[in-house]
Amino acid sequence: MEKIQERIFARLKHIRPRTARLLQKLVQENSTRGNESSAQAIIIEKCRQIGLELDIWEIGDEKLYHHEAYCSDRSQYEGNPNVVAVLKGTGGGKSIILNGHIDVVPVGDLNNWVHDPFSGHIEKGRLYGRGSTDMKGGTAALLMAVEALATVGLKLKGDVIFQSVIEEESGGAGTLAAVLRGYRADGAIIPEPTNLKIFPKQQGSMWYRITVKGRAAHGGTRYEGVSAIEKATLIIQALQELERERNTRITDPLYQSIPIPIPINIGKIQSGEWPSSVPDTAIIEGRMGVAPDEEMLSAQDELESILNTVQENDPWLKENPLKVEWFGGRWQPGSLEENHPLLGALSESYKEVFKEEPVIEASPWGTDGGILSRYGGTPVVVFGPGITETAHDANEHIILEDLYKSAEIIALTLLKWCEVESGGEGEQE
Amino acid sequence: MEKIQERIFARLKHIRPRTARLLQKLVQENSTRGNESSAQAIIIEKCRQIGLELDIWEIGDEKLYHHEAYCSDRSQYEGNPNVVAVLKGTGGGKSIILNGHIDVVPVGDLNNWVHDPFSGHIEKGRLYGRGSTDMKGGTAALLMAVEALATVGLKLKGDVIFQSVIEEESGGAGTLAAVLRGYRADGAIIPEPTNLKIFPKQQGSMWYRITVKGRAAHGGTRYEGVSAIEKATLIIQALQELERERNTRITDPLYQSIPIPIPINIGKIQSGEWPSSVPDTAIIEGRMGVAPDEEMLSAQDELESILNTVQENDPWLKENPLKVEWFGGRWQPGSLEENHPLLGALSESYKEVFKEEPVIEASPWGTDGGILSRYGGTPVVVFGPGITETAHDANEHIILEDLYKSAEIIALTLLKWCEVESGGEGEQE
Repeated sequence: MEKIQERIFARLKHIRPRTARLLQKLVQENSTRGNESSAQAIIIEKCRQIGLELDIWEIGDEKLYHHEAYCSDRSQYEGNPNVVAVLKGTGGGKSIILNGHIDVVPVGDLNNWVHDPFSGHIEKGRLYGRGSTDMKGGTAALLMAVEALATVGLKLKGDVIFQSVIEEESGGAGTLAAVLRGYRADGAIIPEPTNLKIFPKQQGSMWYRITVKGRAAHGGTRYEGVSAIEKATLIIQALQELERERNTRITDPLYQSIPIPIPINIGKIQSGEWPSSVPDTAIIEGRMGVAPDEEMLSAQDELESILNTVQENDPWLKENPLKVEWFGGRWQPGSLEENHPLLGALSESYKEVFKEEPVIEASPWGTDGGILSRYGGTPVVVFGPGITETAHDANEHIILEDLYKSAEIIALTLLKWCEVESGGEGEQE
Repeated sequence: MEKIQERIFARLKHIRPRTARLLQKLVQENSTRGNESSAQAIIIEKCRQIGLELDIWEIGDEKLYHHEAYCSDRSQYEGNPNVVAVLKGTGGGKSIILNGHIDVVPVGDLNNWVHDPFSGHIEKGRLYGRGSTDMKGGTAALLMAVEALATVGLKLKGDVIFQSVIEEESGGAGTLAAVLRGYRADGAIIPEPTNLKIFPKQQGSMWYRITVKGRAAHGGTRYEGVSAIEKATLIIQALQELERERNTRITDPLYQSIPIPIPINIGKIQSGEWPSSVPDTAIIEGRMGVAPDEEMLSAQDELESILNTVQENDPWLKENPLKVEWFGGRWQPGSLEENHPLLGALSESYKEVFKEEPVIEASPWGTDGGILSRYGGTPVVVFGPGITETAHDANEHIILEDLYKSAEIIALTLLKWCEVESGGEGEQE
């Protein structure tokens, strides 16, 4: 086994430059929502070169559209396929899904970027550009590990199912489509940017919009109106109270260093159009965190029921009910049991590479892992080389050395998880 | 005297149709800010016909620009003059200013209007259109009264100084310019739309904008940021508390039926751009009511000092201070002493016309009266035929009978106030 490791490490070292080049090419394709095609083409080419079995398809069928976890305002997916590429095992080992998303978020204000967001510029060991960290860097690490294993002259027993999906940033329709196509496994790794921390649990989230009605009047006779802003402050207080209450219930030690494990963020309020008028509408928008083991619908119920209490206790709101909408993105929470062997294999591999214990935490954001585990029955751990803080931000970048190290850890994990077929440990081809 | 009254009433009755036509023509000219010229031309023509001494000038000199009460973001006044027209008295009587503004507010959403806002359409005794009530109708009533007195064949001792000013809706630069040009008198009537109530006192007002800083963060780790919305709720509470405190001090019986004599309206709040981000800025805008006898600067100080207290007690705000701006329009409060003879003359005339007591209240909004009294030393009473509720709204209109009745009351008041010269009570010319 030591010999195999040595060969794999040598192989990984050998393919570092081509992996950096691969990531550069991926970053240079602006694969925002609806424009994933050309970046997927690069993925497909790479998978062909490695010799994986390819499955390329455009998502979007009735099964997907009617699934309870489907949430998307995208009307068509034509031309921008999902890609799955399998390194078939010889049988008898545990299978694994390696899931990365190809979509990136928009660049925001270009003035904040030092380099062109699609330059893939490399400087002092860091590769810059939109998607470098979230999460084309993670995807490159997956492909690096798979390439090393596939080309170093050994055979794994379990299947390695690499996925490059669309739509993660908008709620996970790509991964959901892969689940519905039948892709399930004994475990999954999602290399979202965790700063090389290991996240066996992920906070889910969903967006809410609360519309509060008032009655307009002139500011000089404001008592003739009802201020939507005043009523909105009742809602804000209720949301703050609900957040406190929900978080006292979180006792998981993975959250012990986190001040608010499942926050209710109030992200936006808009009310009124004129300083001297009483505002007749207020709109509050925010993000509700969902605990790893919680059902999204029960979290929704809880929020709606507390709003209902506010409404019942306020004569105006009772007559002019609040409107609650769950809109935009939603990310399922995820949770891996504490002693799951996948967590063990990954942690062990981490220690072998870094000679120290990994940091194991719960993530403060959702990933496609919630869909994989809840609807695909696939246990998930999130672990990747990207820099959390630069994701979605200007000057997003990744440390290439971290990418290489994460590929080593993932390769070792696959060895342990999928197992090498005896007799399959031949010399490098 | 009875004979004179009869003649005047007959004259007023005779000129009803032409007054309605005058108002129609005035309404048909859209005299929003910067477009007052053509409506003023109609006023000028009318004043010439009556035989008044005209003073027409473009406002805007260093004296105006540097006056403490000047507030305007208008860069030039060329082509849109102020108009003053004097019915010269023979001497020895009390003088009076009759002040109306020619500017109107924009029409807002055209879809809410049944008729074209500049139609001047008359139906069932009501004249419709922007400015009909606020306050071209009041101005028409003034001219109707002056025309009757000037043409009925009598001479008044005191000067009658009719003013048609610009800029009332934007803070009163037109009336301020008239004061600075030397126009003062022993009393003034401003026929703003009071529903024929008499307002010897007027609430002043000014606009504030408070900018609250926070620190952005991802909603999933919202504890890493500081929510500008949360900090804004502290400000809202402080403003509510200040309003309560300020209003307990108001003991004037004119306010006894008014729930909040000097409201602090919170008209607008804007914060945040994304549901799952912690908002880093909140902007609150509103209107602060100022008591009739209060100095605007002392009201400002009071608000700023309460914000300062909030700031001192909050470590974050102490480090990241609030920004307070006094922006946009400001309307000086006004106050006439309780037993002022102008109030007596007007009330008496009201009773003569309507055979009942007038309603005397304090107005919930400012007028140009604050400038006339504070900076022109001219005692002011506000009284006019317009319908308060339709001012600034779609389908603004006025009841023509109210306009005619208010002209009767104003004409009788002028008789009492300016006095008729003995021997000047000749037959109608």
